[in-house]
Amino acid sequence: MKIVVIGGGASGLGAAGAAKGVDPSADIVNYTEFEDVAYSPCGIPFVHGREIESFDKLFLATKQQYADQGIDIHYTTTVESIDVKRHAIKVREEGEIRYDRLVLATGWNYSDPQIPGDHLEGIYRVKNIRRAMEWDKFIDTVKSAVVVECGPIAVEMVSALVHRGIKVTVVDPAPWPMAGVVDPDIIEPVRKSWADAGVVTLWGERVTAFGGQGALAYAETTAGRVEAQLAIIGTRKAPNTALARAAGVALGATGGIIVDSFMKTSASDVFAAGDCTEIPHGVTNVPLQGLSGSHAYAQGKAAGVNAAGGRREYQPVYVPWAMLAGDWMIGGVSFGETTAAAIGVKFVSGASNGITRARYYPGVRPITVKLLADPATRCLIGAQMVGGEGVKERADFLGMAVRSGISIDDLATMENVYSPAIGALNEPIAMAAQAVQQKLGRR
Amino acid sequence: MKIVVIGGGASGLGAAGAAKGVDPSADIVNYTEFEDVAYSPCGIPFVHGREIESFDKLFLATKQQYADQGIDIHYTTTVESIDVKRHAIKVREEGEIRYDRLVLATGWNYSDPQIPGDHLEGIYRVKNIRRAMEWDKFIDTVKSAVVVECGPIAVEMVSALVHRGIKVTVVDPAPWPMAGVVDPDIIEPVRKSWADAGVVTLWGERVTAFGGQGALAYAETTAGRVEAQLAIIGTRKAPNTALARAAGVALGATGGIIVDSFMKTSASDVFAAGDCTEIPHGVTNVPLQGLSGSHAYAQGKAAGVNAAGGRREYQPVYVPWAMLAGDWMIGGVSFGETTAAAIGVKFVSGASNGITRARYYPGVRPITVKLLADPATRCLIGAQMVGGEGVKERADFLGMAVRSGISIDDLATMENVYSPAIGALNEPIAMAAQAVQQKLGRR
Repeated sequence: MKIVVIGGGASGLGAAGAAKGVDPSADIVNYTEFEDVAYSPCGIPFVHGREIESFDKLFLATKQQYADQGIDIHYTTTVESIDVKRHAIKVREEGEIRYDRLVLATGWNYSDPQIPGDHLEGIYRVKNIRRAMEWDKFIDTVKSAVVVECGPIAVEMVSALVHRGIKVTVVDPAPWPMAGVVDPDIIEPVRKSWADAGVVTLWGERVTAFGGQGALAYAETTAGRVEAQLAIIGTRKAPNTALARAAGVALGATGGIIVDSFMKTSASDVFAAGDCTEIPHGVTNVPLQGLSGSHAYAQGKAAGVNAAGGRREYQPVYVPWAMLAGDWMIGGVSFGETTAAAIGVKFVSGASNGITRARYYPGVRPITVKLLADPATRCLIGAQMVGGEGVKERADFLGMAVRSGISIDDLATMENVYSPAIGALNEPIAMAAQAVQQKLGRR
Repeated sequence: MKIVVIGGGASGLGAAGAAKGVDPSADIVNYTEFEDVAYSPCGIPFVHGREIESFDKLFLATKQQYADQGIDIHYTTTVESIDVKRHAIKVREEGEIRYDRLVLATGWNYSDPQIPGDHLEGIYRVKNIRRAMEWDKFIDTVKSAVVVECGPIAVEMVSALVHRGIKVTVVDPAPWPMAGVVDPDIIEPVRKSWADAGVVTLWGERVTAFGGQGALAYAETTAGRVEAQLAIIGTRKAPNTALARAAGVALGATGGIIVDSFMKTSASDVFAAGDCTEIPHGVTNVPLQGLSGSHAYAQGKAAGVNAAGGRREYQPVYVPWAMLAGDWMIGGVSFGETTAAAIGVKFVSGASNGITRARYYPGVRPITVKLLADPATRCLIGAQMVGGEGVKERADFLGMAVRSGISIDDLATMENVYSPAIGALNEPIAMAAQAVQQKLGRR
C-alpha cells in the first residue's frame, strides 16, 4: 500500500504518522514545497515579539526522526497535478508518482487583499519559518507598521511589533477585528490595551494602496495616509485548493474541499484534511473553513487512519478557540451574538463579569464570560470570553458543553472549585448561565 | 415570617442573603459565636505565607452592609439549644427566640486527634481570622513546626510556613496526605517539591504526644521526637452538630445532618447547609461531608431560598476540587483509583503527561491528568490532576462531565484550543481519555 500525502503542515504530518500507525508496512511519502516540516508556525509571532528567544525553539522534530518513523518526506518539491482516475500525481522534480491512497493537506494562503503596490518590499505574510527568520532581521529596521485586516495571526503580530518598539496602525474594513467570531464587548478591553500601548486603530476603514520607492514607505487608507515600512497582511485564510480543483475534486461553498466524516473527498481513494477542507459546524451545519492547528492535526490523523484502512470518524466542529490579544486572552465557542444574529440563529445571551482568583489574591484578573443559549431547548450554543487567565480551559469546557447538549440550567448549577490562589467563589461560567436563566425564566 | 440562621460562615450568610432575596419582607436574624462574618477563611494560610499582605484584605463586606441589606446579625452570641416542636431557640445572651423557619449552618471543627499535651501553647487550628491575627505574630517566633495529619488547609499551611523560613515536619498516619482524594502518583511531585524546600515527611506515622513546659517544644511521633514550637492540626473536618443532635435532628453515617434535595432536615421548618450537613455523591450515592466553601455557599443559598418559601433544588455533588500544594496545583473530581478501589467502584483508568502551553513557550509547565471511567457505560466517573496551571478550570470541566454522563469517547475526541502562549497542541484531558480507550478498546 502506497499512501501519498501532499503538504507538510499539521494535517499532512498528522496523516502520515497516523497512517503509519495503522499500517506499519505501508509506503508513506509526503511531498512538501518547503524546506522544513514539523515546526510550529503558530509560534512565529511570539519569536518576533521576543517572548521566545529563537526560531530554533519552534522545531518539534528533526528530519531524521521522520525518516526513522518510516515517513519519507520529499522537501522542496512541487506537485503539479493529480490524476484521480489513474491514481497518480505529477511531481515537477520526480515525474509521475502512483498512489493507492492520496491525502490532500495543502493548507491555506492569505486571501489576496488586492491592493495596488503589493509588490513593494516590506509586505509580510506571516506563515513560513524560513521567511520569518529573514523578516525578523527586517523588523529591526522598521519604525512603523500597518496591519491590513486584523485576523488572529495579525492580532498576535500587533503585540509582537509593540514589543519591538514599532508604531502600529491596525486597519480593518470590519467594524472591529475578527468580527466574525468576536463581539464588540469582548474586543473593547483589547482595543483599550492596544490604545494604551500606542496602537492606532482604524476600524471600518480600508488600505487602498501601498506606496514607496521599491520599499514600502506608506499605506493609503480610506482614513488618510499611514506611514509604514512594514505591512502585515492579516486577511482570512483561503483554502489552497488549486490542485484539487484542477483534478475535479468537489469544493464547497467556502472554497474548501468537501469531505465526509471520514475525511474522504468526492474522488475515490482521495482524502483531505486541514485548512484546505471545509467542515460542518455542529450547531448550524454551515461549513467552516480555516480552523486551528489542533483541528488540522486531528483531521489529519483521522484522514491518515482511514487512508491506511483503519476507521476514525471526525466529528462536526464547535470550534473552541482562544488566544492572546493585547493584555488579555480572548476566546469562545461557536459564535457570538453578532454572528448568531447575522446567520439567523435564535439565541438568548447572558454575561457575567467575574474574577479568576479570590479578589484579594495576587495576580487576580477580571474575566467576562458571555453565553448564548437556544431559547427553545435551553442548550448552550455559543460563548465568548475576555479575561486575564483560564480562557483556554474554559473554551475547551464550553466547546464540549455545546457538543454534548449541556443546558444553561446545568451550567447555572455547576459545582466549581473555589481556592483563593486559583479560583473565585463564584465561577463566571455559572454566573453567566444564571444571567441567561434570568432572561429565560428558571425552569 | 421570621427566619433564624445559626452560623455566620459561607452557608449561613448565603442562606440569609438568599432568603432576603426571595422574601424582602422577611425578618432575617443570624446568630454567630464570632466577632466577624463575611471574611474569607480560605485566605488565612496565604496571609500567613505572606502572599497576601494583611488579614484586612480577607474581609468581603462590612457589618453595615449586612445591616443595610436587612440582615440582622447578632455577633458573639451562643445558641444553647433548639426546640424544634416549639419553633424556638435559646440564646445565652437573649433568652428564647421564636422562628418560623430555621437554618442550621453551624459548620465544622477539626476532629480531635486525641493527643496528650494538646493543652500546650503553640497548637494551632487554622480557622478563625481573629485567632489567625494573633497566631501570625506567634509564627514570627517559631523555628520549627509539626503538621498533625495533613488535610487540605494543612497542605496550604506547609507552604506558608516554608515561606516564613520555618522547618516543617509533616506527620500523617495515612500512607500519604489527603489519601482519600489523592493517589500516590499525584502527590509525588508535591512530596518532591516539599523535600526540595526542606520539608520532612513522616507518612504512615502518628504524633503520639505533645511535649514542653507550658509551651510546645516537641512532638513525639511513632518515628521519633520532632522539635516544634508550633503544631498545625490538620485533621479532617468534623461536622459541628451538637445543637442539632440535642434537638433530635437526624444525623447520617458521616455524623453530618441529613438533608433532602431542598436542604430540609428531618425536623419541620428546619433547614441545614454547609459543613454541618452530608450530601450524596452523584456517582456512588455515598454521603459526603466536609466539602468546600463554594459548596457551603451554594447549599446555603438553596436552603435560604427554600426557607423563605421559594424553590431551589440542590444537586448531588461530584466535588471538583483543586488547590496549591508545594510548587504545584493538585485537583480532581469525585475520587481517584485508591478510593474507587476501596469502595468497590469498578473503573478503568488512563493517564497522560501533558504540558500547559506550547513546549517552547515561557512559563510552560507539566500537567498530569488521570481519568477514571466506568467500564460498562464508558462514562467518566473520576479524575485527578497535578500540574503547573489550569487545574481549577479542568476540574470544573470534568466535574460537569461526570455529572452530565460524558463518556471517555467524547473526551477522547474533544476539540481543544491550541495557542502557543496558553495551550498545547495535545490537550492532556483528551490524551488521558485516549489512554482509557486503549484499555477498553475503541468503541
